[in-house]
Amino acid sequence: MNTFLFPGLKLGFLLVVVSSQELTRFIPSWAPLSLTRAQNRMNLELNGAAQCHATEKVVDMKLDHFDFTNDETFKLRYFISNKYSSVSNPPIFFYTGNEGDIVLFCNNSDLMHLKYLSSEQALADYAYLIGAIKEEPSLAHSPVIAFGGSYGGMLAAWMRMKYPNVIAGSIACSAPIWNFPKEMECNAPYQIVTKDFEMSSKNCSSVIRASWGALDTMGRTEKGRQDITTGLRLCKPLHSEADVETVKSWLSETWFNLAMVDYPYPANFLEPLPANPIKSICAAFTSPNKTDSELLTQLVGALTIYYNFTGQALCFNTSQTQSGHVDEYGWYYQFCTEMVMPSCSDGVTDMFEPRPWDYDAYVKNCQNLFGVTPRADWVETFYWGRDITTASNIFFSNGALDPWSSGGVLTNLSKTLQAFVIPEGAHHLDLRSKTEMDPPGLIQARLMEYAAVKRWIIEYT
Amino acid sequence: MNTFLFPGLKLGFLLVVVSSQELTRFIPSWAPLSLTRAQNRMNLELNGAAQCHATEKVVDMKLDHFDFTNDETFKLRYFISNKYSSVSNPPIFFYTGNEGDIVLFCNNSDLMHLKYLSSEQALADYAYLIGAIKEEPSLAHSPVIAFGGSYGGMLAAWMRMKYPNVIAGSIACSAPIWNFPKEMECNAPYQIVTKDFEMSSKNCSSVIRASWGALDTMGRTEKGRQDITTGLRLCKPLHSEADVETVKSWLSETWFNLAMVDYPYPANFLEPLPANPIKSICAAFTSPNKTDSELLTQLVGALTIYYNFTGQALCFNTSQTQSGHVDEYGWYYQFCTEMVMPSCSDGVTDMFEPRPWDYDAYVKNCQNLFGVTPRADWVETFYWGRDITTASNIFFSNGALDPWSSGGVLTNLSKTLQAFVIPEGAHHLDLRSKTEMDPPGLIQARLMEYAAVKRWIIEYT
Repeated sequence: MNTFLFPGLKLGFLLVVVSSQELTRFIPSWAPLSLTRAQNRMNLELNGAAQCHATEKVVDMKLDHFDFTNDETFKLRYFISNKYSSVSNPPIFFYTGNEGDIVLFCNNSDLMHLKYLSSEQALADYAYLIGAIKEEPSLAHSPVIAFGGSYGGMLAAWMRMKYPNVIAGSIACSAPIWNFPKEMECNAPYQIVTKDFEMSSKNCSSVIRASWGALDTMGRTEKGRQDITTGLRLCKPLHSEADVETVKSWLSETWFNLAMVDYPYPANFLEPLPANPIKSICAAFTSPNKTDSELLTQLVGALTIYYNFTGQALCFNTSQTQSGHVDEYGWYYQFCTEMVMPSCSDGVTDMFEPRPWDYDAYVKNCQNLFGVTPRADWVETFYWGRDITTASNIFFSNGALDPWSSGGVLTNLSKTLQAFVIPEGAHHLDLRSKTEMDPPGLIQARLMEYAAVKRWIIEYT
Repeated sequence: MNTFLFPGLKLGFLLVVVSSQELTRFIPSWAPLSLTRAQNRMNLELNGAAQCHATEKVVDMKLDHFDFTNDETFKLRYFISNKYSSVSNPPIFFYTGNEGDIVLFCNNSDLMHLKYLSSEQALADYAYLIGAIKEEPSLAHSPVIAFGGSYGGMLAAWMRMKYPNVIAGSIACSAPIWNFPKEMECNAPYQIVTKDFEMSSKNCSSVIRASWGALDTMGRTEKGRQDITTGLRLCKPLHSEADVETVKSWLSETWFNLAMVDYPYPANFLEPLPANPIKSICAAFTSPNKTDSELLTQLVGALTIYYNFTGQALCFNTSQTQSGHVDEYGWYYQFCTEMVMPSCSDGVTDMFEPRPWDYDAYVKNCQNLFGVTPRADWVETFYWGRDITTASNIFFSNGALDPWSSGGVLTNLSKTLQAFVIPEGAHHLDLRSKTEMDPPGLIQARLMEYAAVKRWIIEYT
């Protein structure tokens, strides 16, 4: 955040942070109050905000902005910091929060209120919240800059597209706004993961390519499955070929996540990791021309870096690919309603096993889990698909190493719809704090973002 | 419509007409089927479409675009005509229909389904409908031009603002998109009505100004009320001062409607009327310096022109201000939810009785009628209030005589947000057929609209 100071403009700024999955929206009034205060992702995302002495506040918000017969409200929590604001009408930096933790709620009550979990409700919340904040006379003429990363980056972009009256401009970091049917190849993210591993060493992707066959061969016998359990140091023994499939999915997701967090310095986003984790992992991969067991040994070397970097994991739990920071239940509901993001691999242009995008199976799964049917064409209709050139004042940043960049905006679309790809960047690297180890591409991205924001502020005032 | 042919571009066009209040959306499955085919306003609006040999079609549409847990669909009816289309990818003219007749439904079932009656649902319907129409390969690359008048004009403008991916440009005729709290003076429409009457003759507004006091004085006694009943040829006798208030409201609404339909040639929009009806009416107003009864006689002369032009009305029904074409029930529901359009008069800058905008009474009335509370700040948040300069390719036309022009866009806001006021125009005069009597301002408006549409089509293709 400290990159966003505007000495030239003699302006400080006001920081507002809010989650797009605020727990209280999904918790019926009869639920235990403790739930409404449950730890959620936002608290983690707020590390930066806390350093800015953010104050927690709540505002009454309509439960359903699109149903005028429903007057229920809920308390939307937000954090606000005026540490850097000393003048009237300072720019307001509005962090459009990501998916937050609603798993506690889902374990404790029914799914009914999940229907209020949608990007449309979140954007309307943001618009009203900003309106409420600007009722304060000294903020009435403040330009508001939205910023966010990943799904939050999509929300930041969509805020400017759908509410340009509220948002002067948006910094959308690693926002895969085109990761939808008809808009990209479903294995594009996996191709990027593969390239990331290939760049570190030729052997790296070859070992992974070879590992699937090795696991299949060993997985066919009880003895082989025991060898996998021991060889990969799994917490739970494998009993069937289906269990072996689970191991393979877990490995796939691990490689994918590694590409997302392949940061140039030690970081703790999904897992605590060393700098350039793919490089470290690839060092463990010496050769693909090995026996099946020897291949497993190489994989363990890699997994140890991802899951055990701090030295606390005794065995690997294949039901977990992250240490629990990013809670996937709410996101999965959104994935089952409007966020229909196809995913597949072909084993040729990527290093993964061939897995087509099985739309029917995905729909069935969503119907079983939540009783909802995904609407595959909604996002490209409501959020304009690839026809976004009528929008303005959005800066799209992406990391070349980030698999999600395949669904992002990578080139300038107009003078006011700018894009920049950070060559050394993984998933929204530019939202991280400034460090001594920032690579040149990141420094350049921030300079461009700074210039864009400055232009939007001047334009507004 | 015949103004919209593009010989220079060698293009015909495809015409699509759809209502924003399609009955079938609001009719539960258990309602008698006859209701779903009930006569509604659309049939009337379709006179033009019928002349173009429009075909009626239906498309399955989600009942609720914003509730992903609701998979119910309804049959959205639309009319399509390709009479003027002979080539591939012709421009599609998409008429964003107005409020239609749902009174039959409301009389026959409960109000539950009214919750699906909103501009947001209508716009999403339009977006999906256009997507469905463009699935036909020969239309895949057709530019779509939205056009509409009044509320339909607002929808046309909002379509381009919210779905610029679907709409290449919009002709928004007499669209009072700023007729909302904070955005205009609540008596501005009444000032325009007053000016219209004053322009015809000085006496005209003076007689109306004087009439309120006359009605009050006479209305205080039983004898006086009888005189009003006889003098104004009312169908129902007046029994109380409250009845007299009803008469005054009916008169106010009559003068307002006259200003809306003050067309330069005989027309039948709200009522069958002669050319320049205000002029005809004002001729009946000889002097305000008369006795109370003589004033009534002058009013009758005016009312006869509005309500009895075809010679069929034997007495005046004060519960009706229009012959039933425009059905107000559905619109009133929208007025009670998102379309919060303040209305007042002051008796000084306008010729009406002073009536402040009583927000609390209005809210209570909505709660009693529909069990809903109006959301006064929604439209200015969701549809951008006065900050619409980030939009593009909208042509706003208004009539200087039209009271609704006070909430319209009257000046160019940018190169691509154009506005034109037709000096001789009342409510969306430019949507009417071309006639020999078209005044110069109307001809100019159509030329400008033609040029704008042509530019949008060229830009698109």
